[in-house]
Amino acid sequence: MKKDLIAVILAGGTGNRFWPMSTDKSLFPFFNKPLIVHSAVSHLPKEVTRVVIITNDMNNAVLSHLTFSVPSITVVQPAARGMADALLSAKTHLQNSSLLIINADDVASASYFDDVIAKGQKEGILGVVPGYRAKHYLPMGYLLTDGKAVTGIAEKPGEGNEPSPYIAMLGHYIADGNLLLEELRQTKSNEDNVYEKALSTLMKRHTFILHPFEGDFASLKYPWHVLDVLHVLLETLPNHRGKNVEIKSNVILEGNVYIEDDVRIFENTKIVGPTYIGKGTIIGNNNIVRESHIGAGCVTGFNTDITRSYVGDDCWFHTNYVGDSVVEEHVSMGSGAVLANLRLDDGTVFSTIHGELISSYSNKLGALIGKFVRIGVNTSIMPGVKIGRGTFIGSGMVIDKDIPDDSYCIQKSSYTIIRNKKTVAGVSRDEFRKKL
Amino acid sequence: MKKDLIAVILAGGTGNRFWPMSTDKSLFPFFNKPLIVHSAVSHLPKEVTRVVIITNDMNNAVLSHLTFSVPSITVVQPAARGMADALLSAKTHLQNSSLLIINADDVASASYFDDVIAKGQKEGILGVVPGYRAKHYLPMGYLLTDGKAVTGIAEKPGEGNEPSPYIAMLGHYIADGNLLLEELRQTKSNEDNVYEKALSTLMKRHTFILHPFEGDFASLKYPWHVLDVLHVLLETLPNHRGKNVEIKSNVILEGNVYIEDDVRIFENTKIVGPTYIGKGTIIGNNNIVRESHIGAGCVTGFNTDITRSYVGDDCWFHTNYVGDSVVEEHVSMGSGAVLANLRLDDGTVFSTIHGELISSYSNKLGALIGKFVRIGVNTSIMPGVKIGRGTFIGSGMVIDKDIPDDSYCIQKSSYTIIRNKKTVAGVSRDEFRKKL
Amino acid sequence: MKKDLIAVILAGGTGNRFWPMSTDKSLFPFFNKPLIVHSAVSHLPKEVTRVVIITNDMNNAVLSHLTFSVPSITVVQPAARGMADALLSAKTHLQNSSLLIINADDVASASYFDDVIAKGQKEGILGVVPGYRAKHYLPMGYLLTDGKAVTGIAEKPGEGNEPSPYIAMLGHYIADGNLLLEELRQTKSNEDNVYEKALSTLMKRHTFILHPFEGDFASLKYPWHVLDVLHVLLETLPNHRGKNVEIKSNVILEGNVYIEDDVRIFENTKIVGPTYIGKGTIIGNNNIVRESHIGAGCVTGFNTDITRSYVGDDCWFHTNYVGDSVVEEHVSMGSGAVLANLRLDDGTVFSTIHGELISSYSNKLGALIGKFVRIGVNTSIMPGVKIGRGTFIGSGMVIDKDIPDDSYCIQKSSYTIIRNKKTVAGVSRDEFRKKL
Repeated sequence: MKKDLIAVILAGGTGNRFWPMSTDKSLFPFFNKPLIVHSAVSHLPKEVTRVVIITNDMNNAVLSHLTFSVPSITVVQPAARGMADALLSAKTHLQNSSLLIINADDVASASYFDDVIAKGQKEGILGVVPGYRAKHYLPMGYLLTDGKAVTGIAEKPGEGNEPSPYIAMLGHYIADGNLLLEELRQTKSNEDNVYEKALSTLMKRHTFILHPFEGDFASLKYPWHVLDVLHVLLETLPNHRGKNVEIKSNVILEGNVYIEDDVRIFENTKIVGPTYIGKGTIIGNNNIVRESHIGAGCVTGFNTDITRSYVGDDCWFHTNYVGDSVVEEHVSMGSGAVLANLRLDDGTVFSTIHGELISSYSNKLGALIGKFVRIGVNTSIMPGVKIGRGTFIGSGMVIDKDIPDDSYCIQKSSYTIIRNKKTVAGVSRDEFRKKL
Repeated sequence: MKKDLIAVILAGGTGNRFWPMSTDKSLFPFFNKPLIVHSAVSHLPKEVTRVVIITNDMNNAVLSHLTFSVPSITVVQPAARGMADALLSAKTHLQNSSLLIINADDVASASYFDDVIAKGQKEGILGVVPGYRAKHYLPMGYLLTDGKAVTGIAEKPGEGNEPSPYIAMLGHYIADGNLLLEELRQTKSNEDNVYEKALSTLMKRHTFILHPFEGDFASLKYPWHVLDVLHVLLETLPNHRGKNVEIKSNVILEGNVYIEDDVRIFENTKIVGPTYIGKGTIIGNNNIVRESHIGAGCVTGFNTDITRSYVGDDCWFHTNYVGDSVVEEHVSMGSGAVLANLRLDDGTVFSTIHGELISSYSNKLGALIGKFVRIGVNTSIMPGVKIGRGTFIGSGMVIDKDIPDDSYCIQKSSYTIIRNKKTVAGVSRDEFRKKL
Repeated sequence: MKKDLIAVILAGGTGNRFWPMSTDKSLFPFFNKPLIVHSAVSHLPKEVTRVVIITNDMNNAVLSHLTFSVPSITVVQPAARGMADALLSAKTHLQNSSLLIINADDVASASYFDDVIAKGQKEGILGVVPGYRAKHYLPMGYLLTDGKAVTGIAEKPGEGNEPSPYIAMLGHYIADGNLLLEELRQTKSNEDNVYEKALSTLMKRHTFILHPFEGDFASLKYPWHVLDVLHVLLETLPNHRGKNVEIKSNVILEGNVYIEDDVRIFENTKIVGPTYIGKGTIIGNNNIVRESHIGAGCVTGFNTDITRSYVGDDCWFHTNYVGDSVVEEHVSMGSGAVLANLRLDDGTVFSTIHGELISSYSNKLGALIGKFVRIGVNTSIMPGVKIGRGTFIGSGMVIDKDIPDDSYCIQKSSYTIIRNKKTVAGVSRDEFRKKL
């Protein structure tokens, strides 16, 4: 007899590497919807009969209000002890069922759960594991596979040692969940890899097959992954004009631009899609906005350039460059402030996470800025720098390292005032006017 | 028998709180005319038979050349000892007349002298006092009134203690000037309030009535009041195109824009009215100018934003932000210099006047810059900062306090030069070009 | 019997005052061709029967590949010992001929070699010396002349002591080269003026006549002379659109703009001629480019202003001001970086060459930047400053003196981080939105 299919959505992680972003990862908003809607809710296969969301203390209140077309519950994972612990926390709800294990922080450019389930429901198969091809090596789990069966997972094999081009994605289908739960209970590890170990063990005894995913895929872990997730989601964005949208003269809209209601776009501005503009946002004169997300209630001011960036709700700009950057909500930047996105040597941008220098695997990365940050005029933030929530930064400064939450960065003026003995040279400004 | 009506125009104040502006307040130019023309000359009621202008040492030479449709004289007030002293200085010229007492530094969005006189010329009334409603508390005199009669003036009652919503404006009508002059002579005070005290005394014995003024009103005292006065005057500005005006393609003119002769406006620029552009001024490419005054002979250069600001004659800009600022004549700003107009905390902007921190009652206030100032490239001037006449400020600086006249602000470079061991990464710029 | 006419092209100078430019002066590229093509190759008179190019160690390899319509050879001058030495180095190739002596570093707005030869080939004349009128005194050789005959050369006579308005140009025609070579051999001098001394001696015995040149003329010696040469060459530039040129909407092209193949120009940009845009270059949105040279493979980014400047190949900009500046190839500037081109006092810009302060004779001069330089965001380079090849300059800095080759300019951040006790004022941003 075919078992019930439960979608288990993992949303219990604490996101402690996600600072300075202070929104829960699964709730991080894209296109005015939390990430979990993009990753799980809107792709739920029709074969699923129940949903179990593993949550944490912080996000449970919100996530318990999510509604699905089938019954759903949330289970709070007592502490963030990894994925195996998450599943075991909910084991009473997962008995005697097939499982589709979904990560709330993972997005893909196309639905693949239906295909995974279709492959998994054939005779004699215990599991289906999707895999995708990254553009460059990533320190993640790579699948051991002949292209059809999956026989194991190699954790962070090191560049050049990848056993296959496929990185393990979640979206696992397990025909008999009891087998998995039992294996999880018996597996011990000092590392956060109990789930992968248990799965590898099962793969030795049972048939797991590969679902090669051909689209783009991203997972939210470090704050700059907001840009990767955004990139994946933007690809799916249709062209759209909301109600009460005002577009002034000589505005150029190129590609798919999703414009919510009550947006106003001023003259001589160009928007290159795929780009999302949130409700009530004002895009000022002579702006350029390219492949970006701009939340609701923002004002970009005169002459701003927002390129390949995520901007949350209620942010204000004025003559800024926001390049390859993540700016959470309620951030303001003074005129001439710049989020630099390229090192002088064009090198890969690194960022410090818990004291460790982590590669962004990109040579174009700007700043990562938490909520309620204010940045003074003509201030420059260096590539990969993170600014904590609630921090104020003065004017004319260069910020080259991370700034904690609720800080105030002050730079003492060091100028000298002397008597001005210079007078303006006899050059007539009329001469200059002739050159105009 | 009806008395002669003399308009007494008070222009004898020294404006010692008006620094760094060095033009006499009554002569401060708006729309190529001194303030006194806007405040008094152009509103002179037909009932007035003579004009007496109380001047000071500095402005008398200019003011004695003002012409009216009726006979006029100037009387130099020996020292700036207040309004009572000003009137008494001219008492021989004011005998046996009715008086309309006008402040040369006050402007209103509509003429009200005619109404004041009409009300005052009824039987049994000694005086008429106009009052206006400010948007917020101001440290000025508030009228004691039942809405019709005025029974006294409460000086700076403190916020919440206002006896009425009406702030005392000048434009007082006094049917019998002798009574006022006599009272002024007898009144003693240690403070600069003899006039108000005398008026209050008269109000106990005679009927004074209120003229509620419903329009906008402003008085020039502190340098940022130039913006208040400008705001009032701009409301009255018609749409106008002078002779020999050149407007290039894709220029957007919105609202009332008064453009004097020989102005040139370059491509992709937007001007939002009410705005005044002085004779021969060049507005460069890709500018935005909003609700501002730009004097004659200016050049705004490429990509400048002038918003809610006053700019005098012969100023040069290039890629600047001039927000909520006052820039007197012959000022030049280098590329990227910014006059910041908003604190990081959005708080009310204060400015120091004679050592005292004075509220501007505004959270949007930029810089206040005297004549012949030069500001280097990428320099930032903080909100409410005043820059004295003839001062030069270097490049890349942040100026956060007032700078005296004729100063030269220098900042020593503090960089270190080491051997460059970095080389440009192997990333092909061709990759970057693909993203363009 | 009429002698053979040999064009001697002097290209052996080392250009040690040309730093930070590292291209040989005669090879410095304008319009994708080395200077020598503009100065000599393309103006070669039909009377010339052979060409002798005096080269140096460095440029001989390239110059030996130049082709002319007549036979040519290169002669390497062993060391840079001046012009007399240059000619004597090649004396075996110059026997028994007439000579047209051309400086590879000199350009003129019109061909004049033909006229010089025509004048020189009349009976009884030994030489023809062209002279031009500069706009202001230059420390060069001035001709002693009655307007027809030239009787001597006064070296750097000092301002006010010029014997005539004519500055000696090269392009000398010598009917009997043997006389010149013999005189050069016999002339001794402790200074680098053997050629001028020898010529002056010959002028006492033989007839030399003046060719007054009425056009513009420039010679490449100091790095800012690139702008003078450019100015002369731009005057000759036709209007041109290459193949596969993409010009987006609302692009304004004014005057002669020479656009090479594969150029793309984005929206809301204005280009004022005479201007040259090299092959494959991308001019971004909302730019202004005026009277400038932009090499091949450049990207100007958003909102850049390039005015009266020379930019070499493969340079990248983004929201920069490049005014009256020379930027050699492979230079990148971060967003908001400015090359300032005007002193606060509008004074003449000086630059230090070998420890000596040299006047540029101009009050508008920006920076002079060698190859492979990278400049950080919001950095300001002061007028007349030279940046050596391969140097990196950090962000938010002010560079007010020359920086050697291969340097890394670092500025230590000096900000303090305190606890932010400020909160955002209760002012509703909704109030601000109303003003938009």
